[in-house]
Amino acid sequence: MDIGIGALVDELPSDLVITDPDITASYARDQSRFTSWSVPAVVLAPRSTAEASLCLTAAHRHSVPVVIRGAGSGLSGGANGASGAVMVSTHRLKTIVDIDAEARLATVQAGVVTADLRAAAGAVGLHYPPDPGSVEMCTIGGNIATNAGGMCCVKYGVTRDYVAALTVVLADGTIMRTGHTTRKGVVGYDTTGLIVGSEGSLCMVAEATVRLVPAPAPPTTVLATFDALVAAGRAIVGVHRSGTPFSMVEILDGTTVRAVEHHTGMDLAGVNALLLIQYEGNMPQSAQDELAAILSASGATDVVTSSDPQESDMLLQTRRMALPALEGLGDWLLDDVCVPVPRIVELIAAIEHIADRRGLTIGVFGHAGDGNLHPTIIFDASDAEAAGAAHAAFVDITDAALALGGTASGEHGVGRLKRPWLIRELDPADLALQRRLRAAFDPEGMLSPAG
Amino acid sequence: MDIGIGALVDELPSDLVITDPDITASYARDQSRFTSWSVPAVVLAPRSTAEASLCLTAAHRHSVPVVIRGAGSGLSGGANGASGAVMVSTHRLKTIVDIDAEARLATVQAGVVTADLRAAAGAVGLHYPPDPGSVEMCTIGGNIATNAGGMCCVKYGVTRDYVAALTVVLADGTIMRTGHTTRKGVVGYDTTGLIVGSEGSLCMVAEATVRLVPAPAPPTTVLATFDALVAAGRAIVGVHRSGTPFSMVEILDGTTVRAVEHHTGMDLAGVNALLLIQYEGNMPQSAQDELAAILSASGATDVVTSSDPQESDMLLQTRRMALPALEGLGDWLLDDVCVPVPRIVELIAAIEHIADRRGLTIGVFGHAGDGNLHPTIIFDASDAEAAGAAHAAFVDITDAALALGGTASGEHGVGRLKRPWLIRELDPADLALQRRLRAAFDPEGMLSPAG
Repeated sequence: MDIGIGALVDELPSDLVITDPDITASYARDQSRFTSWSVPAVVLAPRSTAEASLCLTAAHRHSVPVVIRGAGSGLSGGANGASGAVMVSTHRLKTIVDIDAEARLATVQAGVVTADLRAAAGAVGLHYPPDPGSVEMCTIGGNIATNAGGMCCVKYGVTRDYVAALTVVLADGTIMRTGHTTRKGVVGYDTTGLIVGSEGSLCMVAEATVRLVPAPAPPTTVLATFDALVAAGRAIVGVHRSGTPFSMVEILDGTTVRAVEHHTGMDLAGVNALLLIQYEGNMPQSAQDELAAILSASGATDVVTSSDPQESDMLLQTRRMALPALEGLGDWLLDDVCVPVPRIVELIAAIEHIADRRGLTIGVFGHAGDGNLHPTIIFDASDAEAAGAAHAAFVDITDAALALGGTASGEHGVGRLKRPWLIRELDPADLALQRRLRAAFDPEGMLSPAG
Repeated sequence: MDIGIGALVDELPSDLVITDPDITASYARDQSRFTSWSVPAVVLAPRSTAEASLCLTAAHRHSVPVVIRGAGSGLSGGANGASGAVMVSTHRLKTIVDIDAEARLATVQAGVVTADLRAAAGAVGLHYPPDPGSVEMCTIGGNIATNAGGMCCVKYGVTRDYVAALTVVLADGTIMRTGHTTRKGVVGYDTTGLIVGSEGSLCMVAEATVRLVPAPAPPTTVLATFDALVAAGRAIVGVHRSGTPFSMVEILDGTTVRAVEHHTGMDLAGVNALLLIQYEGNMPQSAQDELAAILSASGATDVVTSSDPQESDMLLQTRRMALPALEGLGDWLLDDVCVPVPRIVELIAAIEHIADRRGLTIGVFGHAGDGNLHPTIIFDASDAEAAGAAHAAFVDITDAALALGGTASGEHGVGRLKRPWLIRELDPADLALQRRLRAAFDPEGMLSPAG
C-alpha cells in the first residue's frame, strides 16, 4: 500500500475503511467495456455527509486522489478505480431523509437507489420522473453524476431538471450547500446545475433535494410497425411536431426486432422498424386522431393501441426485451449517441452502413423522441479481431453522430470511454474554460484522476 | 474621458461607438429603484459577434471595465452604468438567424426582442414559452442574463430550460460556443446553464439557440374569488398537488384587488384574494371536476370559467391591470421573492403585517403556482421619510421570504439591488466557489464592475 494511502487509513475510523482485497476487487470497475481500471487498495464507505467530509479531508491532506462511486452501473468507466487512488463509495448513504408532499420535494442521501426514491414518492401520490434503464440498482448520486435520463425524458426531461439543491463535499473536505428549494430562484450562479453531469470530477454529492411531480395516470401505449426505417423516421418527426405531450417515444430498428422475435417467439414478420408511444392517461380523441393521421401518413403497416394497463404493459415488452434479446446474440457494447430528432433516420442508416462495412451485427434501439439512440454492437470478446472491429464501429458511430450535429453521449456520460471526444466535440475555448472551472472546484486535481 | 476609454475609442471603428451625451444618458440605468448608477462615457454597439469581440478585446487591452446591457427593462440594476466603465449594448444584435421548425430550435442574436422571437416561432406553429412581464420590449440576451420567467413557468419552467447553446464573448474578447442542439447531451460541464442567470458578470451573450415547443391551444381561464387570503392559499396548495398541467396559477391579494377595482370600475366587492388559473385547450371533464372540488373545499366564493378565447382574455384583465392599478396609487417599488408553494400564504400574511407596521400600501400579486410573488410597495418618492420606509419594507419582505425557506429573487435577479442578500442567502462555501468560478471566466474582473 502506497505511503499516503497508509497514512490516510491510519487516520480514519476503521469502520469507514474497507481493505479486504476480495471486497475491494468488486469496486474496480463499472459496467463499461473497453475502459481501463485498477483495483482500489482502499474503499472508504461513509454513512453521513460529515463522514464523507472526513474521508475527503484525509485524502486531501495526504495527497491521495479519489474516485467517487455509486452503484457501479455506469457504462462509460467514470467510476473505474484508478492507480494510486482510493475509492469513496456511497453505498452506506442510503437514507431517505424527507419527503415533503406539499412542497413536492424529496431529500435523500446520494446512495439511495433510484427505484426506492420512486417508490417512496409513489407512496404519497407523487412521482420522481428520471428512469434510467438501471433504475432498480442505480443511485441518485450516480444519476446526478451522469445527468441520467431514460424513457421519460421526451416528456419530463433529465435528472438536472429535478435537482433543486445539493449538499456536496469538495476535494479538500469542505461541505458545501448549493441551490434552493423554491420552484424559481436566481440568486447566485447555478452551481447545482454545474455539478449535475460532472461525473464526480468536481466534488462528491452527499445529499440531494429533488423535485417531485404529481403521479401520472397509467399510460395508454401505441405500438406501430413499419416495413421501412424511413417511414418510422417520418412518424418520429410528425410526433415531435405534434402538440400532444407523449410520455414515451421509443424505437427498435430491424436488427433489434429480429433479435426480439428470435428471443421471445413474438411474430414480427416483415417489421423493419417499430415505434412505442405512450400517453399518460386516456388520450383525448383529438390527440388520437392526430396520432392516427401521423402514423398513417408515415406509412405504418400496423397500429395497436392498448385498452387497459395490462395490455399497455404487454406492448411494452418488445422494448424491454430489446437489450436482453441483443445480449443473447453475443458479447455487447452498448453505445449512447444523440442527434437532433429530424436526423435520427440518417443516424440509423449510417449505423446500418457501419455494421455492413465492419461485418458486425448492430442493433439500434432507444429514445427516438429525444434523438437519443443506443446502438448495441454484438461481437465475440474472446476474438481480438472481432473486438477490434467492434471498437472501430463504436468510433465510427460516435463520429457519425457528431457529423449529424449530434453529441457523443446523450445520457451515459464521458467517463474514460468517451474522453477522446471531449476535444472533438467541444469548442476549444469552452474546453479550456471547463478546465479552469474544474480547477476552481479542485485546485490540486484530486478527484477523478485520469489514470 | 478616462485615458483608457479614450484609447479604446480611438482603436474601434467609429460606427460602433456612441459618445453623444444625450444618447449615452439614456443608457445610464435600468428600471430599478434604489440602485446607484453612472452615465457611461461611451456606449459600444456591435452588430455581430465578431464586432462584440472587437469591443471586448479593446476594453480588455486598455483595462476598461464593461457593463453589458440589453433593453434596460431590468428591475435590479444589473445593467446600470458604472463609473469608469463602458457600456456594451446589444441593441443592434437584432437578427433572427434561423428558425428550424423540424428540430424545434431558433437561433437569434442577443438583442432580439422576446416578443419578436415568439411571433417568429408562432408563424411556424411553434412557441417560445418564457413570458416575462416586459416581453414586448425585453431581449433574449437580457432574459438569458436574468434567467427570466413569467406567468408560463408553472407549466413550462424558466429561460434556462430553453437555452440549448450559446455563442458568447469572454472578457478578453475570446469567442466561445457552448452547449448542444440535441435534446439530451452530457459531454462536458453545463457551461450553458451556468452562463444563464449570470447577469452579464461572466461573459457577454452574443447569440443563442433556444428550444421551441408546439404551439399551445387557446387557454381556458378560471377566475376564483375568496373572502379570505387563507382560503386562496388552500386552493393554491390543492392545485399544486393536482395532476393537471395548469399553464398559469396567478394570485392578486386584497390590496391589489381594491386597486384594480378602483382603477377599472370592476365590481369586486368582498373579494380579498383572487386566483386566475389557465389550462391550455379545453379542460378534460375529470380535471374540471377535480379543480371544482379543490376550489369548493378551499372556500372559493365565486368561480367563473371562460367558454371562449375572448372571455378568457377578459378574465385575464384583472391580472394585467394589477401593476397599472397599483402604479396609479403612487411611486412604486416592485419586489420579487419566492418561497416554497405551501408557504405562500404565510409570506402574504407577513407582507400585510409589514405594510401595517411601516404604514405603507403594499399590493401583492404574482405567480402563486411557483410561490413567486411581486410585492409592490407604494410610496411618495419625493418624501425622504416615505422612501426610507419603503426601502425598510423592501428589506423586511426579502428577509421574510428567506425566513420561510425562500429566496431573495425568483426571477428579477440580484443586480445592485439585492447584492446584500448574496451573503445572507448563499452558503459561504458556495459563495466562495462562485467567486472562483467568476475568476475562471474573467480573471481580471472586467465585467459588471461593482461600482
